[in-house]
Amino acid sequence: MSEAYKTLEQRFARLYALREAAGMLHWDSAVLMPSGGAEARSEHLAALEVTCHEMLTDPRLAELFATAADDAAELDDWQQANLREMRREWLHATAVPSRLVEAMSRATRSCEMVWREARPASDFARVKPYLADVLALVREEGQAKGDALGVAPYDALLDQYEPDGQSARIDVIFEDIAAFLPGFLQEVLDRQAQEPAPAVPAGPFPQASQIALAERLMQGVGFDFNYGRLDVSLHPFCGGVADDVRITTRYDESDFTSAIMGVLHETGHALYERGLPAAWRRQPVGEARGMGLHESQSLLIEMQACRSPEFIGHLAPIARDAFGGEGAAWSPGNLRRLYTHVEPGHIRVDADEVTYPAHVILRYRLEKALVAGDMELDDLPAAWNEGMRNLLGIQPPDDRLGCLQDIHWYDGGWGYFPTYTLGAMAAAQLFDAARRAVPGIPEALARGDFKPLLGWLRENVHGHGSRFSTDEVLEHATGKPLDPEVFKAHLRQRYLPN
Amino acid sequence: MSEAYKTLEQRFARLYALREAAGMLHWDSAVLMPSGGAEARSEHLAALEVTCHEMLTDPRLAELFATAADDAAELDDWQQANLREMRREWLHATAVPSRLVEAMSRATRSCEMVWREARPASDFARVKPYLADVLALVREEGQAKGDALGVAPYDALLDQYEPDGQSARIDVIFEDIAAFLPGFLQEVLDRQAQEPAPAVPAGPFPQASQIALAERLMQGVGFDFNYGRLDVSLHPFCGGVADDVRITTRYDESDFTSAIMGVLHETGHALYERGLPAAWRRQPVGEARGMGLHESQSLLIEMQACRSPEFIGHLAPIARDAFGGEGAAWSPGNLRRLYTHVEPGHIRVDADEVTYPAHVILRYRLEKALVAGDMELDDLPAAWNEGMRNLLGIQPPDDRLGCLQDIHWYDGGWGYFPTYTLGAMAAAQLFDAARRAVPGIPEALARGDFKPLLGWLRENVHGHGSRFSTDEVLEHATGKPLDPEVFKAHLRQRYLPN
Repeated sequence: MSEAYKTLEQRFARLYALREAAGMLHWDSAVLMPSGGAEARSEHLAALEVTCHEMLTDPRLAELFATAADDAAELDDWQQANLREMRREWLHATAVPSRLVEAMSRATRSCEMVWREARPASDFARVKPYLADVLALVREEGQAKGDALGVAPYDALLDQYEPDGQSARIDVIFEDIAAFLPGFLQEVLDRQAQEPAPAVPAGPFPQASQIALAERLMQGVGFDFNYGRLDVSLHPFCGGVADDVRITTRYDESDFTSAIMGVLHETGHALYERGLPAAWRRQPVGEARGMGLHESQSLLIEMQACRSPEFIGHLAPIARDAFGGEGAAWSPGNLRRLYTHVEPGHIRVDADEVTYPAHVILRYRLEKALVAGDMELDDLPAAWNEGMRNLLGIQPPDDRLGCLQDIHWYDGGWGYFPTYTLGAMAAAQLFDAARRAVPGIPEALARGDFKPLLGWLRENVHGHGSRFSTDEVLEHATGKPLDPEVFKAHLRQRYLPN
Repeated sequence: MSEAYKTLEQRFARLYALREAAGMLHWDSAVLMPSGGAEARSEHLAALEVTCHEMLTDPRLAELFATAADDAAELDDWQQANLREMRREWLHATAVPSRLVEAMSRATRSCEMVWREARPASDFARVKPYLADVLALVREEGQAKGDALGVAPYDALLDQYEPDGQSARIDVIFEDIAAFLPGFLQEVLDRQAQEPAPAVPAGPFPQASQIALAERLMQGVGFDFNYGRLDVSLHPFCGGVADDVRITTRYDESDFTSAIMGVLHETGHALYERGLPAAWRRQPVGEARGMGLHESQSLLIEMQACRSPEFIGHLAPIARDAFGGEGAAWSPGNLRRLYTHVEPGHIRVDADEVTYPAHVILRYRLEKALVAGDMELDDLPAAWNEGMRNLLGIQPPDDRLGCLQDIHWYDGGWGYFPTYTLGAMAAAQLFDAARRAVPGIPEALARGDFKPLLGWLRENVHGHGSRFSTDEVLEHATGKPLDPEVFKAHLRQRYLPN
């Protein structure tokens, strides 16, 4: 094996170990750190970040990459893919001068702080100058990374979250969905109006009982508590590392439905992490492929499997017994209607499966136009409201429920939004393929048995790490690249059954 | 301010931030990490350690230290002390070739693993060859560091834990104590025999009640839960960082006395960390002065303050009510006899305040002789047993209760042992001075009020960080360097009152 490649592997192993250390400290901050520890913690994270950045921008890497490329014939497939992914990270890191990195860090920190006050006050004008600073730097970053990667600025930003993602392709897919949605949504709302409104089971639902139920369900899905934990945090997330996955949720003692489904969602992320190729821990090729595929794994568990009528038939009596409930509200049919209720709303994170893509498509269109300079921030609130009217038929009463609602743009996460819906679509396509490939998946889910599904996911998705592109993974696993028809068919079948 | 000094400060700030990050991950490993995370965690810690070592042995530091020394006149007192302490660390790190660092790391890892099996089997012969490897490397390390620091090998090892510690001085102090102990111990045992044997309060003592009591007591002592936590681990310790101190203990539901006093001990460590000079966080001069002074702060709280009759008078009814106890076993007098019971035993960590120094003096004599080559490992078990007979009048029935009991030598911690008793003596001397300087400390302790004591400690010990040597701290605070007479007077006053 090439010496240069070996040296690169060693350097990336240390880089990833330091990043994982930072990840664990993030978890600690979110879950249990006392408030007084915040200042020291930001010093720890800053020291780790600057150390990692220096490792990745070390001038000696250029020569190592050049030599390793010359010797690439000595590498096996995994090593070649690893070299490609190491190079992608290095290009992203070196494309941007450190002056810009620092300016971006300062600008996003200020903007996010002001946004935290501007959002509850619904005061877009207040945060607009800060967002303008961020956007100017994002445009510069997109240009610099685009030059290095040989793609357009927005695609370079997208590549940070969705490697090899192409906006030209996303345009086609999203326009297809955007054309389909309004009519479909109206049909679903009409159909729903003919059914009984779902009854909400009466609480209270003590946190300890919710945790016990969540842990039981997690184990059923395949989460191994020797390799991870479930804890409480204000914002649910899946953190930690592949063999020590830390998932969190928050509990509302008057409603168990959202915490339980939230935990199952994060469990989907956790299973992906755990199933990544063990031989490639702490190397780029051993990491999850991208945010789209990551979201596909959480949504495959949550939306495809756990909101299926089969699994809800299993869940209903277990949940009823966990909380000592009784009555019709606990029937599988009612719980299914509750968990698949469709209702257009202003807030993305509260959206159901049918309306969610509309929220994402709106943001995707707007951020692309803003990065390209085809739109200015002055026009953002109006464009947002117009998009909501066109896509969902509702208009936010204020910017708090409109363009101020998400943190992403204000803290520099441009290019991230499309991954939510790309993930939802990939989830539908992978679940469809798994059911075709492995007989008995729905019957197993009806028993709470995820093994057949998980076995297929391990082999066809998780175990590949970042060896293939997302579309290659989908082609190998489902016979075709991402295809919006499968997602639409899923929605029709679930929400407009014959 | 000198540019060279400023650069050194920046480098040490990052070094200490990375070390603190490692410290937080150690806490996580001990408190809540699932077993499957162990392998990844050891990669995180190794990456941090090697990164820190590289920073500290960067060849450019030599010139920075030389230039900063030339410009030392531009520095204020704190900066000069900081430069001195940075230099101490750098000398320790660069004195030892990386070949020796790696050999030591391998040898101690193997030796510790074998020790974990040899101890329960009481099989010193089994671990002896591994310990011989460690000792050979320790001798080499002591020689190399001694050459760099200009002191004898054992004193160089001691300097790692007790900066500027001198074995010639410790010899005098410990021989004084060793001459005093056997006769004093006999008098105490005779006196104790005339008193009623302490009754042990009857349990069970539920863990939740012990935690609630411990947290209440911690707050009384001055622990602020906005800046720290109390958790459970197999081996109690005080970890975390100055503004996020993580203390741990373990609970025995059949006996509350040891967990409660253990928590108070760790709270003493925690208060020291929190009281270190805030302006010097993550700089060497802002760190605790050494292990002796650190132990003095835990023992001052535990042994001097919390085992005083005044505090036990406050504790007894609170503890009784916390566990719903009743009867004579809960009287202050009985609890005081329980908490000051003296009994020679084989195990250091179970020893009482009177016999503890004998355990330490024995280990100090032996490790000094072993490092100097005045004794060989073949003679260790016999020398241990003879020392126990001379100092405490008992002989271990096997090496499990003898020279195999402590991990220190087997994992490379040579030069650490004396700090326990140096700390106990400093605790007595500081507590004595505090009571003279601040009126009403005993009366405050009788109300559970530690503020007068803590205020004095903040000003006279904690706030100095590493600006002065331990003896200078004692001289400023008590009017003289460490003086065994004060410790002996404390023991006489507590155990042989008129």
